[in-house]
Amino acid sequence: MASGKLDLYCRVASMNERPWCQSTGETQLCRHSCREMRGGSVVQIQIVAVGKLKEKYLIQGIAEYVKRLGPYARVQIVEVPDERAPESMSAAEEALVRQREGERILAQIKGDAYVVALALDGKPLSSEELARHVEELATYGRSHVAFAIGGSLGLAPEVLARAELKLAFGRMTLPHQLMRLVLVEQVYRAFKIMRGEPYHK
Amino acid sequence: MASGKLDLYCRVASMNERPWCQSTGETQLCRHSCREMRGGSVVQIQIVAVGKLKEKYLIQGIAEYVKRLGPYARVQIVEVPDERAPESMSAAEEALVRQREGERILAQIKGDAYVVALALDGKPLSSEELARHVEELATYGRSHVAFAIGGSLGLAPEVLARAELKLAFGRMTLPHQLMRLVLVEQVYRAFKIMRGEPYHK
Repeated sequence: MASGKLDLYCRVASMNERPWCQSTGETQLCRHSCREMRGGSVVQIQIVAVGKLKEKYLIQGIAEYVKRLGPYARVQIVEVPDERAPESMSAAEEALVRQREGERILAQIKGDAYVVALALDGKPLSSEELARHVEELATYGRSHVAFAIGGSLGLAPEVLARAELKLAFGRMTLPHQLMRLVLVEQVYRAFKIMRGEPYHK
Repeated sequence: MASGKLDLYCRVASMNERPWCQSTGETQLCRHSCREMRGGSVVQIQIVAVGKLKEKYLIQGIAEYVKRLGPYARVQIVEVPDERAPESMSAAEEALVRQREGERILAQIKGDAYVVALALDGKPLSSEELARHVEELATYGRSHVAFAIGGSLGLAPEVLARAELKLAFGRMTLPHQLMRLVLVEQVYRAFKIMRGEPYHK
């Protein structure tokens, strides 16, 4: 059952301890001997983004959702360095910026990861559809999901080609740094939906 | 010309002074005698939202964009009180919550305002389309635009009926408080697009 796989979190460890249990190959063993932790896979969420977050309010907001995600998934946010991208670059120069940033993104993503590239022309999923999708992935053993967010010029074709899902958050262009906050909130919402837990809108 | 109307901001007053000029009926008069200020209308943006912002990072983020919008528009954010909305309410009780919150929203909106209701089943505009729409409104003298964001249960039918545009920010459900930040960023982006000014993505 789909939800079975995702229910394998330790119910004893508090978030201040180590909420996730040691993995021994395919099997999760909880040091608190929670039954819920045995025999399943833990969803790993990786968000690979370009550039160092500057705005303090975004850092705080993202930290808040990463904390809340603690009991549901292993979450890793990786920032890769951005290239300088002044106005008035040629198309070739812009492509080079995307390519270099793209190489850095791909270098952070493991071979078995299911890659979701955020793209304006991607598939516009609802929150429920995203939740169902992540749940199905876990059911089929694809428990490592990597979301890639491009820099100010977007993602390189190489990253889009590596992605198994191109995901659109509507037709509006958001600043890529604000996009991180919106994404991590949607990932949190997805887990709340999968668990059938209440969550305010 | 559309951009003419929107270009009427004072180029002398700094943001710490009073960036907008006194209005005498239809005519804007700048106390710095900027030519740009004469004879046009100033766009007024009102965001009417339900509930008091709790998260400090959202308060800071929204304040940042309101500050940046200073030279472009008169911006007013109005928070109307939310109703208690516990889980396990009946449909009728939920409708009553929406209705009461809706009455408070409508009480804040002036008769001549162009009302944009944020709704998941609304029209999904791109950032450029939203900018063009606000620009066209100003051209036709509709320089007061009020955005309405519902509470956790959404907007009442009465607010949707008052709206001349139902606007969707994609198919994902965002927390209504985070929606305020995303909206105010898009409004800022719209003005940058109208002016043809660079703005990072």
